[in-house]
Amino acid sequence: MKKLYLDNTSGNPTDPRVVQAMLPYFSEKYGNPQSLHDWGAEAQAAISSARDKVARLINALPEEIFFTASGSESNNFAVKGLALPQEKKGKHIVVSKIEHVSILHSIKALEKQGLTSTEVPVDKDGRIDLEQLKSALRPETILVAVQHSNNEIGVLQPIEEIGRICREKNVVFHCDAVQSAGVVPLDVRALGVCSLSLSASQFYGPKGAAALFVKKGTRILPLIDGGIQEDGRRAGLENVPAIVGMGAAAELAQAEMAERSQKLIKLRDRLLAELPKNIPESFVTGHLTQRLPGQASFVIKFIEGESMMMFLNMEGIAVVSGSACTSRILKASHVLLALGLDPAIVHGSLVFGFSKDNQEADINYILEKLPPIAARLREVSPLWKKE
Amino acid sequence: MKKLYLDNTSGNPTDPRVVQAMLPYFSEKYGNPQSLHDWGAEAQAAISSARDKVARLINALPEEIFFTASGSESNNFAVKGLALPQEKKGKHIVVSKIEHVSILHSIKALEKQGLTSTEVPVDKDGRIDLEQLKSALRPETILVAVQHSNNEIGVLQPIEEIGRICREKNVVFHCDAVQSAGVVPLDVRALGVCSLSLSASQFYGPKGAAALFVKKGTRILPLIDGGIQEDGRRAGLENVPAIVGMGAAAELAQAEMAERSQKLIKLRDRLLAELPKNIPESFVTGHLTQRLPGQASFVIKFIEGESMMMFLNMEGIAVVSGSACTSRILKASHVLLALGLDPAIVHGSLVFGFSKDNQEADINYILEKLPPIAARLREVSPLWKKE
Repeated sequence: MKKLYLDNTSGNPTDPRVVQAMLPYFSEKYGNPQSLHDWGAEAQAAISSARDKVARLINALPEEIFFTASGSESNNFAVKGLALPQEKKGKHIVVSKIEHVSILHSIKALEKQGLTSTEVPVDKDGRIDLEQLKSALRPETILVAVQHSNNEIGVLQPIEEIGRICREKNVVFHCDAVQSAGVVPLDVRALGVCSLSLSASQFYGPKGAAALFVKKGTRILPLIDGGIQEDGRRAGLENVPAIVGMGAAAELAQAEMAERSQKLIKLRDRLLAELPKNIPESFVTGHLTQRLPGQASFVIKFIEGESMMMFLNMEGIAVVSGSACTSRILKASHVLLALGLDPAIVHGSLVFGFSKDNQEADINYILEKLPPIAARLREVSPLWKKE
Repeated sequence: MKKLYLDNTSGNPTDPRVVQAMLPYFSEKYGNPQSLHDWGAEAQAAISSARDKVARLINALPEEIFFTASGSESNNFAVKGLALPQEKKGKHIVVSKIEHVSILHSIKALEKQGLTSTEVPVDKDGRIDLEQLKSALRPETILVAVQHSNNEIGVLQPIEEIGRICREKNVVFHCDAVQSAGVVPLDVRALGVCSLSLSASQFYGPKGAAALFVKKGTRILPLIDGGIQEDGRRAGLENVPAIVGMGAAAELAQAEMAERSQKLIKLRDRLLAELPKNIPESFVTGHLTQRLPGQASFVIKFIEGESMMMFLNMEGIAVVSGSACTSRILKASHVLLALGLDPAIVHGSLVFGFSKDNQEADINYILEKLPPIAARLREVSPLWKKE
């Protein structure tokens, strides 16, 4: 049976070139980067080179890059680490309604300590309402967090404009760019962000390697206290092989981004256009063009996305219904609800994430396999019959 | 030139058998463990198998193992996560004076939120004073944290007895066993701990893989909030290859522990006995027998450990002077000061960490190379001349 992995929004395979770059750092170049001997210096140099590459990917300075172990850790580090030192200024945070759970739940944790937050709505295409964002800002607002793009609906946000608003109001601005970094061009200076999260596993780097950009001069408390690693802001033995892998992946992403994007946009746009034609009662979620190159998401009304996913899995096709970080809870997606969709239909969500190695033939395969499954499920769906 | 790596307390090389076990999880079995398709299920099964192996290593239940990315993260998770939910009961923490910085600095972070702590002294051999520990406990004490063994002086603590004291007083007990796990037998039931940190890189597993044991029924808040990974207590995409590596390393450690230990103890004891005979004014730090199998540490009076380390490095030998997590700060070690040593001599610290692959010939080599370097440094040392 053909095997077709289309769950790249949940992370993609590590590029074999990246694995090759990592390999020597397991059993040959294994020094602790903080040890002051040749083995340590070798590891320290490897981290430093990776830091340069990651910095270049987003036009940051190397000393503005702090390595972490996941996008979620980066987001926790940012939200908690940026908010707490400003408690004297205020205790109010502004976010979009469709942030990743690692942002929203970090804020929930802070709310137990007396902070409050305002969630700014998005329009039916998933784009944040800038006027509402402006009016959510108060004198005691200390942090704005808006994602660069969304994993469930692929939508890109107007980060530059939000950056401008935050600078005018002198509010710290964090941007979760986990889905975007290494995929679309990012320039932290042009975006006007104070901090930005990125994760290697979204651009063919290894799991366990991520980073937080923190603009020079921005005060941030560590999430992990202890040793002097990462300039004293993220303690713990550095995962040297993974960091080296992230550097290699960043370099490849930068070199190949234009070519990868061009190809991905073609695949995406064809699926966005043709799937709704082939499946009655299906529609695209998220903005049609302001979206990630390789992301196509839909809702098929009155069909359980999980059932759909399971049937596709039996055909050898991997997709998800919503976000991998929450998929096992089977709760209605807060992202789809924020689009104003009827709660009765948001369970019919289906997310396709293409990789640089997908082909036109893969789209043909989906368009061949998916409609009959949808038709079959529609016949047995109690939701459908109810209508 | 012969190359001799003796800095295994700062982490050791990944066993090639472990790397082999990890390799398929980069570019072939790359699913997100939370995705509900075959690729995800394969990754989930791999994590589950690794969890079983890590649990078996310390006689825990699989559901009591929470994977993290470093020993420092595990210690932060434990200290902060165990203390905060008990704030109604009290705000006092008891630790030993020689805990790792990831414990001590986590407590410092909590102190900014109003918690207080008492540091219990150790004797000249580095063993905690149990009577003083008992008298440090107050009705409002909510957490005791004592390490299983120390990276700078190798000393093993009487954890079972501390466990008993804590159970009697009904106080949560965390044990940092990063240096011990996978090296000496650990049984969390017999030790009577509520939580225990371990790190794969201390037993030939990969960097970036660590865990926290949390006894069933113990309340702990996440350090990293967000998705539902690790039973909702540690959000973020799981580092599947590293976790698989930790599982493989745990299995090997359990199978080979007795053999490895026997060999390491012989090497250690020979160096502990012979180095002081060969270098005037040197002495062993830490207890002679209640110590880690492969750890030998010394102070050479009136010589800078860093200079010594540099000269040894030029001879191809890697050692450290103190802890890698703090070595670049060149501050007097809080561990050595706690032994009651004169601050004027604690900079002469030298730590040897042997690996399972070291041989008797390596001890010969150290005993040949080290004394002449010490003699040369003693001649030029301003500290020495002052005496």
